Amino acid sequence: MRFYKIIAVVPAFVAVISSASSQERVDPDGALHIQDLPVPLSSFLSPEARTYMLHLLRDHPFAGGPSPEQDIQGYRARQDEIMNWFLKPIRDRYPANVEHKTIAGVYTDVVTPQGGVAPKNKNRVLLNVHGGGFVSGARTAALVESIPIASVEKIKVITIDYRMGPEYKFPAASEDVAAVYREILKEYQPQHVGLYGCSAGGMLTGMSIAWLQKVHLPNPSAIGVLCASIGDLGGGDASYLTGPLNGFTMPGGRRGSEETQFRPAYLSNVDPKDPLAYPINSPTLVATFPPTLLVTSTRGLEYSSAINSHNALVRAGVDAELHVWDGLPHAFWYNSDLPESRQVYDVIARFFDRHLAK
Amino acid sequence: MRFYKIIAVVPAFVAVISSASSQERVDPDGALHIQDLPVPLSSFLSPEARTYMLHLLRDHPFAGGPSPEQDIQGYRARQDEIMNWFLKPIRDRYPANVEHKTIAGVYTDVVTPQGGVAPKNKNRVLLNVHGGGFVSGARTAALVESIPIASVEKIKVITIDYRMGPEYKFPAASEDVAAVYREILKEYQPQHVGLYGCSAGGMLTGMSIAWLQKVHLPNPSAIGVLCASIGDLGGGDASYLTGPLNGFTMPGGRRGSEETQFRPAYLSNVDPKDPLAYPINSPTLVATFPPTLLVTSTRGLEYSSAINSHNALVRAGVDAELHVWDGLPHAFWYNSDLPESRQVYDVIARFFDRHLAK
Repeated sequence: MRFYKIIAVVPAFVAVISSASSQERVDPDGALHIQDLPVPLSSFLSPEARTYMLHLLRDHPFAGGPSPEQDIQGYRARQDEIMNWFLKPIRDRYPANVEHKTIAGVYTDVVTPQGGVAPKNKNRVLLNVHGGGFVSGARTAALVESIPIASVEKIKVITIDYRMGPEYKFPAASEDVAAVYREILKEYQPQHVGLYGCSAGGMLTGMSIAWLQKVHLPNPSAIGVLCASIGDLGGGDASYLTGPLNGFTMPGGRRGSEETQFRPAYLSNVDPKDPLAYPINSPTLVATFPPTLLVTSTRGLEYSSAINSHNALVRAGVDAELHVWDGLPHAFWYNSDLPESRQVYDVIARFFDRHLAK
Repeated sequence: MRFYKIIAVVPAFVAVISSASSQERVDPDGALHIQDLPVPLSSFLSPEARTYMLHLLRDHPFAGGPSPEQDIQGYRARQDEIMNWFLKPIRDRYPANVEHKTIAGVYTDVVTPQGGVAPKNKNRVLLNVHGGGFVSGARTAALVESIPIASVEKIKVITIDYRMGPEYKFPAASEDVAAVYREILKEYQPQHVGLYGCSAGGMLTGMSIAWLQKVHLPNPSAIGVLCASIGDLGGGDASYLTGPLNGFTMPGGRRGSEETQFRPAYLSNVDPKDPLAYPINSPTLVATFPPTLLVTSTRGLEYSSAINSHNALVRAGVDAELHVWDGLPHAFWYNSDLPESRQVYDVIARFFDRHLAK
């Protein structure tokens, strides 16, 4: 309580900054070296989120399994196992029908809420592109991301099993999204269609806006770039801070750095400056984005790039909105046990309800 | 580049989280202990912001001067000196007329852009309540916050020299805001009035909404809670992380903690649960807030509480919007040399332009 008492008589702005004695070393280029820093769980977490974070930090439940290079099928099986942990309580909480449908030659799952689509949503549909690093997540993460939204918003969600690496390379996934969307537009007006995804799926959502323009398709009404950005997922303070805050060390024993571009096999053939893959490279393209929802969290590897994307969209005049949760990791909303996750479902549902035409 | 090459074949979500070997110690309660963590300047900073951050981290330009307890007038003189560093380039960049006016017995500065108020803003006015920890900033930080907004939005801004500590205690400042506002309402409709402030002024903005209801005055049209929250400024991951990221150690040699409530002398008589001082304590009150703009930055001590306030407002159904800048400290937008600061001016100006009635 010592600090409390001291700050009790020391006002904010300059008083704190002017405390000059530093435990940190500062390099000539401004790089800080942090030592001996305790960081408890965020005081803003719900009890459920505290329990989850403690589990992640202490038990490493997602560890294990082969790498994609060692055994791609084994890797996907392990990731699907993890996603099914998330999926089970979601299926219990959010009763929905899931029906396979091939659209334009692409496998999709069509999710409808058990009570039926709301009258206001009869002419509306959401497209989902799942996370999983452009290598996994089809039909599992896909349902984790789709079922709660279909159920909360009482809307049809079609989740697309787009082509991934290492078997396929960019722009295969963008082509699949465009193919499904083109077919969907035979039944729906673009102003009645939304598109969203998380992580790699959030990136693919932004990429898809670029690709749809290339193939002369109209924008959907609104998009959700979740746990992602419209550029690379790395960069900024998050590259350095969020690794340790999740209790892990980066591969190779090295911490995150601003060189940590997210470059999976799927994107290995892509110029990092190519706006078709990283739309933030083109302000002209960014200015054409439809209303865009960004959701991130302060222990998510993407949080700096997400807020930077939000700023770029706002500067370009796009109706972009940002929501951030404190002290939670990348894609935390996959876990429906957390009140914070259910807040995310509400934010997504309301966003599309506001932006899709009636 | 080693990490880059490794991640090039490792996909995002689970792959990173599953890297289980940890350099961090994790306490049974989930507290991490970070060691040997390099954190460079954010890769998203503009060149001007890099220069400024380097200056802050290496030169500690805001250090020095007496504490408020030692010498309140000396403390204020030092803070005013610092604010005048920011004010000088602002006066050069944003020509404006500043006129003293006593309103309802309260000292105010009335700021009008040199070219005159825009026709659309003839019936509109913004009220500003300055930062400075409820102890300093009157007539200096006040102009730093008011002049750029008056100039960019071409609108009249009245900045209020409200009563502060240690001479006065809560709710003196809220009473002064209410007194000025009551007088302003003789000339303006509430739907034509906006209110904003930064740091302590951001807190006071939220407090004022509570106080106006207590004294039966209508809400202004929209408010800006900048570098602040509608609760305490501390809490969350920011309490622990942003101190080291600014290169300073907290007073008493201890780092920030979740006990770091911002409790200046002005608030020393207030129950931390009192919604009149900390509106976030009352969801019923929060639900009555007008459209609210929140601006924060990831190295700002308030960023966790700011995003938490945004979430609380959104959950309560308030039209709240959040903007965050990466790698910048508390109240960075006082420095008009930064493109990021000028982006903040634009965000504030557009926000009020959208929300104030025509």
